Amino acid sequence: MKYESVNQAVEALRKLQQTQAAYNHAMGVLYLDATTAAPSDTWEGRGKTMEILSQVTYDLTVNPENGELLSYLEAHAEELDAQTKREVEVLRKGYDQMFKIPAEEYVAYSVLLNDAQAVWAKAKNEDDFASFTPYLEKIVAYNKKFAGYFNPDMAPYDALLNEYEEGMNTATLDAFFAQLREAIVPLIAKIQNVQQIDDSFLFHHYPAEVQRKFSDYLMEVMGIDRSHCGIAETEHPYTTNFNNKDVRITTHYHEDNLVSSMFSVIHEGGHALYELGADDKYNYTALSGGVSMGIHESQSRFYENIIGRSEAFVHAIFPKVKELFSEQLADVDETMFYRAINKAEPSLIRTEADELTYALHIMVRYEIEKQLIGGTLEVKDVPAEWKRLYKEYLGVEVPNDREGCLQDSHWSGGSIGYFPSYALGSAYGAQMLRKMEEDLGDVYADVAKGDLSKVTAWLVEHIHRHASFKKPGQLFEEVCGKFDAKFYTDYLTEKFSKLYNL
Amino acid sequence: MKYESVNQAVEALRKLQQTQAAYNHAMGVLYLDATTAAPSDTWEGRGKTMEILSQVTYDLTVNPENGELLSYLEAHAEELDAQTKREVEVLRKGYDQMFKIPAEEYVAYSVLLNDAQAVWAKAKNEDDFASFTPYLEKIVAYNKKFAGYFNPDMAPYDALLNEYEEGMNTATLDAFFAQLREAIVPLIAKIQNVQQIDDSFLFHHYPAEVQRKFSDYLMEVMGIDRSHCGIAETEHPYTTNFNNKDVRITTHYHEDNLVSSMFSVIHEGGHALYELGADDKYNYTALSGGVSMGIHESQSRFYENIIGRSEAFVHAIFPKVKELFSEQLADVDETMFYRAINKAEPSLIRTEADELTYALHIMVRYEIEKQLIGGTLEVKDVPAEWKRLYKEYLGVEVPNDREGCLQDSHWSGGSIGYFPSYALGSAYGAQMLRKMEEDLGDVYADVAKGDLSKVTAWLVEHIHRHASFKKPGQLFEEVCGKFDAKFYTDYLTEKFSKLYNL
Repeated sequence: MKYESVNQAVEALRKLQQTQAAYNHAMGVLYLDATTAAPSDTWEGRGKTMEILSQVTYDLTVNPENGELLSYLEAHAEELDAQTKREVEVLRKGYDQMFKIPAEEYVAYSVLLNDAQAVWAKAKNEDDFASFTPYLEKIVAYNKKFAGYFNPDMAPYDALLNEYEEGMNTATLDAFFAQLREAIVPLIAKIQNVQQIDDSFLFHHYPAEVQRKFSDYLMEVMGIDRSHCGIAETEHPYTTNFNNKDVRITTHYHEDNLVSSMFSVIHEGGHALYELGADDKYNYTALSGGVSMGIHESQSRFYENIIGRSEAFVHAIFPKVKELFSEQLADVDETMFYRAINKAEPSLIRTEADELTYALHIMVRYEIEKQLIGGTLEVKDVPAEWKRLYKEYLGVEVPNDREGCLQDSHWSGGSIGYFPSYALGSAYGAQMLRKMEEDLGDVYADVAKGDLSKVTAWLVEHIHRHASFKKPGQLFEEVCGKFDAKFYTDYLTEKFSKLYNL
Repeated sequence: MKYESVNQAVEALRKLQQTQAAYNHAMGVLYLDATTAAPSDTWEGRGKTMEILSQVTYDLTVNPENGELLSYLEAHAEELDAQTKREVEVLRKGYDQMFKIPAEEYVAYSVLLNDAQAVWAKAKNEDDFASFTPYLEKIVAYNKKFAGYFNPDMAPYDALLNEYEEGMNTATLDAFFAQLREAIVPLIAKIQNVQQIDDSFLFHHYPAEVQRKFSDYLMEVMGIDRSHCGIAETEHPYTTNFNNKDVRITTHYHEDNLVSSMFSVIHEGGHALYELGADDKYNYTALSGGVSMGIHESQSRFYENIIGRSEAFVHAIFPKVKELFSEQLADVDETMFYRAINKAEPSLIRTEADELTYALHIMVRYEIEKQLIGGTLEVKDVPAEWKRLYKEYLGVEVPNDREGCLQDSHWSGGSIGYFPSYALGSAYGAQMLRKMEEDLGDVYADVAKGDLSKVTAWLVEHIHRHASFKKPGQLFEEVCGKFDAKFYTDYLTEKFSKLYNL
């Protein structure tokens, strides 16, 4: 097909993106339903539907007409506005990648992931890694294969990392993680030699019903518009967005733990604010949504830790916390609460790890992924390697796989190469905080009053509104200058030295 | 396209139906999300998605290739098995109907319904019929137009009735409703002259949290497999099914009313059992799901009234009812409870009407629809006509539109001609009961023990498993013989005469 004018081609491009957005919306809702409301034994029919819709999505993207359309627009790049030019660039990347995956593999992989989701949930529940093994083996095999399709010149794991954070590779991450370890490990050692913090009151009985009210309150303090953002309950918390006016977060209530859901809500709320803050003009285009996992995690972990675990934020919310949980926290004051939610202690569960030891959990996953994709570790040996690394990095014994290598949903969801984004995001966030303070002065003064509006406005202006218009590296550097992990290690050192009087 | 063999064409037919099923699933989940979990102000993006998917669904059904496929199979009908033959018949009906609706009208109508859903919910909430008027006007106009497309030889309202119950028309319904009125109105008059039943205890405070547990219990007694059937909360209760292994019911909890949700759950549970009982072989075909609205309502109202409002059922569940609501029902015994849930009294809200006056609520809607589609009533005059008819049929004053003509979601959902199915379904159900008793003897003996298995097994055998394989009239007559409303009026007369000692 030939295009008669650039306008006609741009029109076709817009229509294509709107159609893709519609399928993404439909498949996103199917996934949301699967994880929130669907009865347990309904995966078969959903699998069939996903198989058919995945095939349609694939055909919609990978077809000669689209190839021609993109080529035509690339040949007329100088006549396109900046947004359209970037849309073409993003679509080209997706097209080339998809084009390299044979349709039947793409569809089979989608079906595999649908099945794996259910198998993993059951395996975790029953502490039965063996039942999940064949699924993870296939997922690893597909990811290796896809890595070769995406970037045959890169080492496979680098190619996968590049999917989540453009330009990232193991050389950079090895250095980054080494730098973190150098700062964190001595800090942890010092902390273990001083008086430990009592956080036992966080593990009294906290009824889910009251925690639900607490979630609503936290979302309100964060300034999340509930007419555009819902909250649901899932095994593993996540955020999904259908457009910048329809975002959903999920959490999981543990009745013996006040902070698990509390920080899930703030973390996912950070993701949600990023999506809600995108400019309307990117809706229903390839530029909608956050630009990379690293930038996304910078936002979620900014709210979770830099804001949510600050003295200022605790000061703002503590009266409400006491009101909701007056019995459980009868003898607890604001300082005790602040110290308890920041207690640094090597532990088993990543999502419940403290801010300081968190990166070590990521390093375990990073090392295992590197080996799985590198071919030096077999899936059946993951539990043993997991246990070995937790012992080495965190000094803890992993008693079972439910609290070990089955704890996260990422691998069953096909995400290999995603985990490092969490650590990167934390480091990005610390550097953003310094820049924000240069621009706004003492941001914590407002936070202490429960007013996050200036913080969020700054992030909307510099990060959120751009959605995927700028590449992640460019976006970050334009705002913060060159990435330097030192901002993060300095932040951690200062915070935890003060907290523990080191 | 030419087919080389019947097998090849049958294969194409199966693939077509599987694809249609996938889109129906996706759009069904979008609707489920919209009504259960979606934040309030998210309709715009969902509308865009529905618009695109509706267009795809339309194109998928209405295209020359499908026309050829159906013609080819019709020409080879003698070589097809019975199921395939019926699939062709059902698809042909849909094809011919869709073919008559221009694509742009079909899509515009889907978008209109998406918007109307949100507008109606708000209008009902704010008792503001005027804001809903332009939407209902358009829905009525579309339905008139579609009626002409479907069956230009029929009166428009007959054509619409025929959509929900093949073969139904106003002549039959006028006679049916007259027969009902003849039996019901004198009964109501007699009841109003005797001692009224005290049902005030049903309207104490019943916390939603405990009602949720009660719903779980009721579904358990009904033998609904929760691994294949979920329950959610919506403004207006409904049932949706994606296949026979994935069915969802919804309810609405009113904390000042124990029975509203109780009978919604049993009613929707009846719909769910019908869907869950379908034979696997009809999944992902045009024969999946219940065959008509009348037969569907026969199942829902069978469980709701014939079982759920029986002395035997009350006997079975009363210990649990007392356990859950011990304070509210401290002074209430089984007989008082049975009488209270059967109290016959003209009232405002259809879904909360008793078994006896229910049909009068339907008659009001039937008369209004007949006039709206017949062109003798304008939408703006619906509230006044509603009030007039409620006064005439039920003798009650309608104080506002929220509790009047805005109470049901059917019209905002585009369903005009559906309401009569409720009354027909009740009558079908009464006739099924007699047949069931002929086959099984005293079915209520088991029900009194909380054992509905024989009742459900009978319905699965005679009704559920057939899904849409048989036409509704044929299905009913093969099991019950010729339809006769007298079974229903006899059932009502006997039950309410005994209840009120008339």
